[in-house]
Amino acid sequence: MDANPILAEAVRGNWVENRHRGAFVVMDADGRVIASGGDIERPVFPRSAVKSMQALAMFDRHAVEKFHHSGAELALACASHHGEDAHVEGVGHFLERLGLSAADLECGAHQPADAAARAALRAAGREPSPLHNNCSGKHSGMLSVALAMGVPTEGYVGREHAVQQAVRAAVEAVIGEPLSEERCGTDGCSIPTWAAPLRAFARGFARMASGKGLDQGHAAGARALFDAATSHPHLVAGTGHIDTLVMEAFGGRVMQKGGAEGVQCGAIRDKGWGYALKCDDGNMAASQTMVAALLLNHADPDAQQRAVLERFVRQPTRNVRGAVVGEVRAVGA
Amino acid sequence: MDANPILAEAVRGNWVENRHRGAFVVMDADGRVIASGGDIERPVFPRSAVKSMQALAMFDRHAVEKFHHSGAELALACASHHGEDAHVEGVGHFLERLGLSAADLECGAHQPADAAARAALRAAGREPSPLHNNCSGKHSGMLSVALAMGVPTEGYVGREHAVQQAVRAAVEAVIGEPLSEERCGTDGCSIPTWAAPLRAFARGFARMASGKGLDQGHAAGARALFDAATSHPHLVAGTGHIDTLVMEAFGGRVMQKGGAEGVQCGAIRDKGWGYALKCDDGNMAASQTMVAALLLNHADPDAQQRAVLERFVRQPTRNVRGAVVGEVRAVGA
Repeated sequence: MDANPILAEAVRGNWVENRHRGAFVVMDADGRVIASGGDIERPVFPRSAVKSMQALAMFDRHAVEKFHHSGAELALACASHHGEDAHVEGVGHFLERLGLSAADLECGAHQPADAAARAALRAAGREPSPLHNNCSGKHSGMLSVALAMGVPTEGYVGREHAVQQAVRAAVEAVIGEPLSEERCGTDGCSIPTWAAPLRAFARGFARMASGKGLDQGHAAGARALFDAATSHPHLVAGTGHIDTLVMEAFGGRVMQKGGAEGVQCGAIRDKGWGYALKCDDGNMAASQTMVAALLLNHADPDAQQRAVLERFVRQPTRNVRGAVVGEVRAVGA
Repeated sequence: MDANPILAEAVRGNWVENRHRGAFVVMDADGRVIASGGDIERPVFPRSAVKSMQALAMFDRHAVEKFHHSGAELALACASHHGEDAHVEGVGHFLERLGLSAADLECGAHQPADAAARAALRAAGREPSPLHNNCSGKHSGMLSVALAMGVPTEGYVGREHAVQQAVRAAVEAVIGEPLSEERCGTDGCSIPTWAAPLRAFARGFARMASGKGLDQGHAAGARALFDAATSHPHLVAGTGHIDTLVMEAFGGRVMQKGGAEGVQCGAIRDKGWGYALKCDDGNMAASQTMVAALLLNHADPDAQQRAVLERFVRQPTRNVRGAVVGEVRAVGA
């Protein structure tokens, strides 16, 4: 197995300190490779980068029809949010509309990703709840699927539960190939995650962007989810996050979503292209530089969009006193 | 440039999620390679892994003679400590003996690495001080050098300051080659860090362990520093840290020290061997699995020492609810 190319590096002073390898691919819905680097056939765990694919189960199982989910709710179902007030209140309202509460979430609780939200919780002497879990919107969507299917919500995170079977089927339909028990793990939020090639995920996002190769329901669902996410970019991530800022800047043209351990997926919607990348070592900052470079090269950014991407294609690193001592940057960008 | 080998990997469920490449070398003081993998000639920033080399300046400039530094003080000078009470009090006392205080430290302040220490600070409504900085002991040693040299302490972190020149000279003497302005950066604690080959650092640690190739002062200083660190392993890192646990288990036979961005250095003292490794991508957990494998293979561990190393050669990863969902592990260990 050849090593993937170095796609990002961290520089300190005048010397390279770290090297980050990875693979990436930009594809159209017919499977034509627009650009790629590294091994795009090796299965990788997509983690949270495919939440919009997973959310298609809400359409398949008529949850959207039953609960008339709003754009904000669909955006939260696609989100890895930062636990800011808008996120916590949005998910709380989402659950309330289902007749459920935070107690029904099986994602566990963790501190908000947003520093101000963490500080506010601490100042109030409060512990984080499952609502603060970055995946609480996705889990609310899964609870909605359970209710629409008429199955017990309890245990909905389990691999054999009807909800996860529905989620798996939606992802398989979009990527156009089966997921395998031989490449399965448990995600941070306790649901199963299935590894598949970057090529398959990129083509899946191209299909979602274009509707090509999908049945009518998935095509409409994908359009609704991408519209929701790109119309509510702050709900999908949070203040200052690359996903939020890129989707804000591109005004609906780009769907962008990160996943844990250095995964980045999305679609350049007006071109009908999907993309997927993974940093081999799981470094998130490095993967952000990589996806910023990918979008600079392939999403035809205007000056304002370029300015946003350039904030992420080279990210300064600071010492304890706050002085810039180096940067993480895409290689060749 | 060939890619370094994969020395660690992260598994989730039944599939490899991340791959960590790196290079390592075990050497004797004559420069004989006992074992190696990857490119050991590429210069890397050693960061905190060479604090014991840097502390030799305290001997060169007669600071140890002048202030009669204790073993605990020498251990703190070699430490990346966790900001626990023993560390903060130890450094406070160290500075007091110099007639200085936390206000003279130029390392900046950060939250303690130890979770209980962080929680205690927060519960007391207190902000961390420079004493909590993991490098505060090293900086105290550098202030001691400044006083012994009769130079102003202010600005002692600067690359051109007499203290940093003394530190640089000590490291150059031990590794046996010059450091270069062309491979220099600023460390997290604001002092300069100089890149050099892993081979040079490993041989330097072998020289410190054996005294071979060093002048009498450096040989005696190295012995005193390794004795101090291995006699006070909790002061060198903190509760639960690999450096502390390994040095406790090996009872003086192994000097082990990590540095930021995936560096691990040390010595197998009874064999007169030094070692150095770097994880290419800077991942700390991966670098810990690598050094645990190195010590399993080369430090002749007894059953108890083996048990400690095995805790680090495979490290479980957990999801938000605390369930084990995978592990980071050395490859081939």
